[in-house]
Amino acid sequence: MTQTQSKVTPDLVRAAYGALGSGDRAQIEQYWSNDMHWLVPGLHALAGWYKSLDEFLGFMAKTAELSGNSFEMEQVTILTNDEWSADVTHNRGRRAGVPEGDTSPYTNLDIWVIHLLRWRDGKVVEGRGAIFGDGTTRFNEFWSQLLPDGTRLPQ
Amino acid sequence: MTQTQSKVTPDLVRAAYGALGSGDRAQIEQYWSNDMHWLVPGLHALAGWYKSLDEFLGFMAKTAELSGNSFEMEQVTILTNDEWSADVTHNRGRRAGVPEGDTSPYTNLDIWVIHLLRWRDGKVVEGRGAIFGDGTTRFNEFWSQLLPDGTRLPQ
Amino acid sequence: MTQTQSKVTPDLVRAAYGALGSGDRAQIEQYWSNDMHWLVPGLHALAGWYKSLDEFLGFMAKTAELSGNSFEMEQVTILTNDEWSADVTHNRGRRAGVPEGDTSPYTNLDIWVIHLLRWRDGKVVEGRGAIFGDGTTRFNEFWSQLLPDGTRLPQ
Amino acid sequence: MTQTQSKVTPDLVRAAYGALGSGDRAQIEQYWSNDMHWLVPGLHALAGWYKSLDEFLGFMAKTAELSGNSFEMEQVTILTNDEWSADVTHNRGRRAGVPEGDTSPYTNLDIWVIHLLRWRDGKVVEGRGAIFGDGTTRFNEFWSQLLPDGTRLPQ
Repeated sequence: MTQTQSKVTPDLVRAAYGALGSGDRAQIEQYWSNDMHWLVPGLHALAGWYKSLDEFLGFMAKTAELSGNSFEMEQVTILTNDEWSADVTHNRGRRAGVPEGDTSPYTNLDIWVIHLLRWRDGKVVEGRGAIFGDGTTRFNEFWSQLLPDGTRLPQ
Repeated sequence: MTQTQSKVTPDLVRAAYGALGSGDRAQIEQYWSNDMHWLVPGLHALAGWYKSLDEFLGFMAKTAELSGNSFEMEQVTILTNDEWSADVTHNRGRRAGVPEGDTSPYTNLDIWVIHLLRWRDGKVVEGRGAIFGDGTTRFNEFWSQLLPDGTRLPQ
Repeated sequence: MTQTQSKVTPDLVRAAYGALGSGDRAQIEQYWSNDMHWLVPGLHALAGWYKSLDEFLGFMAKTAELSGNSFEMEQVTILTNDEWSADVTHNRGRRAGVPEGDTSPYTNLDIWVIHLLRWRDGKVVEGRGAIFGDGTTRFNEFWSQLLPDGTRLPQ
Repeated sequence: MTQTQSKVTPDLVRAAYGALGSGDRAQIEQYWSNDMHWLVPGLHALAGWYKSLDEFLGFMAKTAELSGNSFEMEQVTILTNDEWSADVTHNRGRRAGVPEGDTSPYTNLDIWVIHLLRWRDGKVVEGRGAIFGDGTTRFNEFWSQLLPDGTRLPQ
């Protein structure tokens, strides 16, 4: 029966993201391993490896804070095989605390992303994001502390 | 039977890349639609949308030329659903015509990549690459015409 | 008297740029050495060393072509010492052949720049540009062939 | 006499940097205005405007900390006019706390820089750095928290 439980399916992937969104730690731990690793793409203050579920949740909280909870991930499709899943999303958000009317990539994000997850025994043990097109340049600008005129936002 | 033919499987994906590698146009057209589109990630001279199979093959030929056929894609895993595939690869290459001994990211590429393909009737109609970690910065450097000292290579 | 002629002054710098703007080769050669070198900053198709006056003029012609002659350099100040000059400019331009109404950094340039020139016997023998703030990211986007949606412009 | 005092000369510029290096606040304030502004170039955690002498000295302290005091600025030349100075330096440093033997741009910096200073009444009221060649990409990598494999250094 273990085999059935560990099979990666689109439903399992959706359930894992749903748990993450709930903020409930017990529910999250059903799908995300405590020693999971996560690699954020790009060259900016949030980029690189997060080496535990705690660090990953810290990263998630930071993105929510910096974007004033405006971050939205619209799901496009989910692919799987026995050990991996990949989900494609359209991500949009706006930097918190920035001047109204600023439409620059420093304060507005609109990118297409793919997350590759590795699963073991029904839980995510590793995840890596990657960005389509030139979205990485815009991701780097968005997570920087800069406004277009070089003003530094509080981090 | 059409349904069976159009089902996306890891074997189909492998066959499509195999055809691409063969260089045989008839074989390629069995798996890649003539009006396919392909989005190369990053901010460099080869980045952006290629809007036909001809343009895509032109891009492939350019990467082979600029890397002196050193480009290697090692396959890590393939994921699918009914309409899409995603294949993860470890890509390595060296710029053609560069000084021996140069180990900089301007002349040496070593990145982890994912390609998302959309299929219709057993053929790829759209593809998009994306790069893990900070590989996009290194991809931008590699496809630039620059050596570390700013010398411009012939493009 | 040679000494007086070779002294670098703001007037000499202005005369050199004036000659460059005239497009008259004989006039240009009065101020710019035939074996001058010029380093364009950033990571984009035009970046790197141009290793003669011919190559430098080719670069200048390319920027005019790609920007549909919209490139404007507004002079802010000129500094000198016996051997060097530095001129600060506010540069603006718009990519040629792009959709009306596009206000993105891929098609619109607005940066503050400094050029450092080295002089010998009254002529520029070396020049290097550098960009203030995050203008380098925007310079890289502007000289890329990309529109914000990833469409490739003819180069 | 005010006129003589406010004249910008290479000696004045050297004295101002000397005061900065001394770490003595009273000495620093002789050359750097308390409400000075400073613009750090690039797209990284330290980039952007510092809007007072306190903020600027905080930035300087941060660079010393992150580079384990390895940061060296070798002076190349100094240019002036009545109101401005520009000094060219060759900057080298190594990230603190990184693996021995790592020669990547993420941990090693080697760039050529120019600083443009604006003076009033013998004191710097504004400064802006800019980087030659593709040094901005390498500056962004160096001040990131990343090692080449994506490990996050403590910031």
